[in-house]
Amino acid sequence: MIVNVMEEVVEEVLKRYRTELKLCCDCQHCTTDVKALALNDLTPKYVTNPNHSVYVRAVLEGDPQEVTKLLSVVTRAASKVSANPRCSANSTRE
Amino acid sequence: MIVNVMEEVVEEVLKRYRTELKLCCDCQHCTTDVKALALNDLTPKYVTNPNHSVYVRAVLEGDPQEVTKLLSVVTRAASKVSANPRCSANSTRE
Repeated sequence: MIVNVMEEVVEEVLKRYRTELKLCCDCQHCTTDVKALALNDLTPKYVTNPNHSVYVRAVLEGDPQEVTKLLSVVTRAASKVSANPRCSANSTRE
Repeated sequence: MIVNVMEEVVEEVLKRYRTELKLCCDCQHCTTDVKALALNDLTPKYVTNPNHSVYVRAVLEGDPQEVTKLLSVVTRAASKVSANPRCSANSTRE
Protein backbone atom coordinates (compact mmCIF):
# COMPACT_ATOMS: atom_id res chain seq x y z
CA MET A 1 0.00 0.00 0.00
CA ILE A 2 1.51 3.31 -1.05
CA VAL A 3 0.82 6.58 0.77
CA ASN A 4 1.84 10.15 -0.02
CA VAL A 5 3.05 11.41 3.36
CA MET A 6 2.39 14.98 2.22
CA GLU A 7 -1.37 14.27 2.38
CA GLU A 8 -1.29 13.89 6.16
CA VAL A 9 1.23 16.74 6.51
CA VAL A 10 -1.07 19.17 4.63
CA GLU A 11 -4.06 17.90 6.64
CA GLU A 12 -2.23 18.70 9.88
CA VAL A 13 -1.14 22.15 8.70
CA LEU A 14 -4.78 22.90 7.86
CA LYS A 15 -5.90 21.83 11.33
CA ARG A 16 -3.10 23.61 13.20
CA TYR A 17 -3.27 26.92 11.32
CA ARG A 18 -7.01 27.03 10.64
CA THR A 19 -7.40 30.51 12.22
CA GLU A 20 -4.30 32.02 10.60
CA LEU A 21 -5.26 30.72 7.15
CA LYS A 22 -8.55 32.64 7.31
CA LEU A 23 -10.46 30.16 5.17
CA CYS A 24 -13.82 31.44 3.93
CA CYS A 25 -15.58 28.46 5.55
CA ASP A 26 -14.92 25.18 7.33
CA CYS A 27 -16.91 22.94 4.99
CA GLN A 28 -15.55 19.67 3.62
CA HIS A 29 -15.73 20.98 0.03
CA CYS A 30 -13.47 24.00 0.62
CA THR A 31 -11.03 22.06 2.84
CA THR A 32 -10.68 19.36 0.16
CA ASP A 33 -10.12 22.01 -2.51
CA VAL A 34 -7.29 23.57 -0.45
CA LYS A 35 -5.72 20.15 0.12
CA ALA A 36 -5.78 19.20 -3.58
CA LEU A 37 -4.41 22.59 -4.68
CA ALA A 38 -1.61 22.51 -2.10
CA LEU A 39 -0.65 18.89 -2.84
CA ASN A 40 -0.38 19.64 -6.56
CA ASP A 41 2.28 22.27 -5.70
CA LEU A 42 4.28 20.13 -3.28
CA THR A 43 6.81 17.42 -4.14
CA PRO A 44 5.17 14.09 -3.29
CA LYS A 45 6.77 11.82 -0.70
CA TYR A 46 5.38 8.34 -1.25
CA VAL A 47 6.23 5.49 1.12
CA THR A 48 5.35 1.82 0.71
CA ASN A 49 4.70 1.33 4.41
CA PRO A 50 2.49 3.89 6.22
CA ASN A 51 4.43 3.20 9.44
CA HIS A 52 7.52 4.71 7.82
CA SER A 53 5.87 8.08 7.35
CA VAL A 54 7.32 9.24 10.69
CA TYR A 55 10.86 9.15 9.24
CA VAL A 56 9.85 11.21 6.21
CA ARG A 57 8.07 13.70 8.45
CA ALA A 58 11.05 13.97 10.80
CA VAL A 59 13.31 14.91 7.86
CA LEU A 60 10.72 17.36 6.51
CA GLU A 61 10.08 19.04 9.86
CA GLY A 62 13.81 19.36 10.51
CA ASP A 63 14.33 21.39 7.33
CA PRO A 64 13.29 25.04 7.84
CA GLN A 65 13.26 25.66 4.07
CA GLU A 66 10.82 22.77 3.53
CA VAL A 67 8.59 23.97 6.38
CA THR A 68 8.51 27.51 4.95
CA LYS A 69 7.65 26.17 1.49
CA LEU A 70 4.89 23.98 2.93
CA LEU A 71 3.29 26.86 4.86
CA SER A 72 3.58 29.19 1.89
CA VAL A 73 1.97 26.67 -0.50
CA VAL A 74 -0.92 25.92 1.88
CA THR A 75 -1.48 29.64 2.51
CA ARG A 76 -1.59 30.32 -1.26
CA ALA A 77 -4.05 27.44 -1.79
CA ALA A 78 -6.26 28.71 1.07
CA SER A 79 -6.27 32.23 -0.42
CA LYS A 80 -7.24 30.90 -3.85
CA VAL A 81 -10.13 28.87 -2.44
CA SER A 82 -11.30 31.71 -0.19
CA ALA A 83 -11.34 34.05 -3.19
CA ASN A 84 -13.42 31.58 -5.24
CA PRO A 85 -15.26 29.16 -2.92
CA ARG A 86 -17.16 26.43 -4.78
CA CYS A 87 -19.24 25.14 -1.87
CA SER A 88 -23.04 25.44 -1.74
CA ALA A 89 -22.88 27.59 1.42
CA ASN A 90 -21.03 30.29 -0.51
CA SER A 91 -22.83 29.96 -3.83
CA THR A 92 -26.24 30.58 -2.20
CA ARG A 93 -24.91 33.79 -0.64
CA GLU A 94 -24.46 35.37 -4.05
CA MET B 1 -12.05 12.64 -1.27
CA ILE B 2 -8.79 13.58 -2.98
CA VAL B 3 -7.01 11.30 -5.45
CA ASN B 4 -3.68 11.65 -7.21
CA VAL B 5 -4.53 10.68 -10.78
CA MET B 6 -0.88 9.78 -11.37
CA GLU B 7 -1.33 6.74 -9.08
CA GLU B 8 -3.71 5.04 -11.52
CA VAL B 9 -1.68 6.26 -14.52
CA VAL B 10 1.52 4.65 -13.17
CA GLU B 11 -0.44 1.49 -12.29
CA GLU B 12 -1.66 1.24 -15.89
CA VAL B 13 1.79 1.86 -17.36
CA LEU B 14 3.13 -0.97 -15.18
CA LYS B 15 0.40 -3.33 -16.41
CA ARG B 16 0.68 -2.37 -20.08
CA TYR B 17 4.49 -2.42 -20.32
CA ARG B 18 5.22 -5.24 -17.87
CA THR B 19 7.27 -7.21 -20.42
CA GLU B 20 9.24 -4.23 -21.74
CA LEU B 21 10.08 -3.02 -18.22
CA LYS B 22 11.82 -6.35 -17.48
CA LEU B 23 11.02 -6.25 -13.77
CA CYS B 24 12.98 -8.80 -11.73
CA CYS B 25 9.72 -10.29 -10.43
CA ASP B 26 5.97 -9.77 -10.41
CA CYS B 27 5.50 -9.71 -6.65
CA GLN B 28 3.44 -7.11 -4.85
CA HIS B 29 6.50 -5.84 -2.94
CA CYS B 30 8.56 -4.98 -6.05
CA THR B 31 5.57 -3.54 -7.93
CA THR B 32 4.75 -1.26 -4.99
CA ASP B 33 8.38 -0.15 -4.76
CA VAL B 34 8.37 0.81 -8.46
CA LYS B 35 5.10 2.71 -8.04
CA ALA B 36 6.34 4.70 -5.03
CA LEU B 37 9.68 5.54 -6.67
CA ALA B 38 8.01 6.63 -9.91
CA LEU B 39 5.34 8.71 -8.17
CA ASN B 40 7.98 10.56 -6.16
CA ASP B 41 9.53 11.70 -9.46
CA LEU B 42 6.29 12.73 -11.16
CA THR B 43 4.35 15.96 -10.65
CA PRO B 44 1.21 15.01 -8.71
CA LYS B 45 -2.22 15.65 -10.22
CA TYR B 46 -4.75 15.65 -7.41
CA VAL B 47 -8.46 15.93 -8.09
CA THR B 48 -11.24 16.33 -5.55
CA ASN B 49 -13.64 14.10 -7.48
CA PRO B 50 -12.35 10.72 -8.75
CA ASN B 51 -14.81 10.95 -11.68
CA HIS B 52 -12.85 13.94 -12.99
CA SER B 53 -9.66 11.92 -13.42
CA VAL B 54 -10.62 11.24 -17.05
CA TYR B 55 -10.13 14.92 -17.93
CA VAL B 56 -6.69 15.03 -16.33
CA ARG B 57 -5.71 11.81 -18.09
CA ALA B 58 -6.96 13.08 -21.45
CA VAL B 59 -4.72 16.17 -21.14
CA LEU B 60 -1.78 14.05 -20.01
CA GLU B 61 -2.15 11.44 -22.75
CA GLY B 62 -2.49 14.15 -25.39
CA ASP B 63 0.91 15.62 -24.50
CA PRO B 64 3.76 13.57 -26.05
CA GLN B 65 6.33 15.23 -23.76
CA GLU B 66 4.36 14.19 -20.67
CA VAL B 67 3.96 10.63 -21.97
CA THR B 68 7.70 10.37 -22.68
CA LYS B 69 8.52 11.67 -19.20
CA LEU B 70 6.09 9.23 -17.62
CA LEU B 71 7.55 6.22 -19.46
CA SER B 72 11.10 7.31 -18.71
CA VAL B 73 10.39 7.78 -14.99
CA VAL B 74 8.64 4.40 -14.67
CA THR B 75 11.47 2.68 -16.60
CA ARG B 76 14.09 4.25 -14.31
CA ALA B 77 12.14 3.19 -11.21
CA ALA B 78 11.79 -0.38 -12.57
CA SER B 79 15.55 -0.56 -13.26
CA LYS B 80 16.35 0.66 -9.74
CA VAL B 81 14.07 -1.94 -8.14
CA SER B 82 15.30 -4.74 -10.41
CA ALA B 83 18.89 -3.90 -9.48
CA ASN B 84 18.07 -4.01 -5.74
CA PRO B 85 14.91 -6.07 -5.15
CA ARG B 86 13.76 -6.07 -1.53
CA CYS B 87 11.22 -8.90 -1.76
CA SER B 88 11.64 -12.21 0.07
CA ALA B 89 11.73 -14.15 -3.23
CA ASN B 90 14.91 -12.34 -4.21
CA SER B 91 16.56 -12.14 -0.80
CA THR B 92 16.43 -15.97 -0.38
CA ARG B 93 18.17 -16.44 -3.73
CA GLU B 94 21.36 -14.82 -2.43
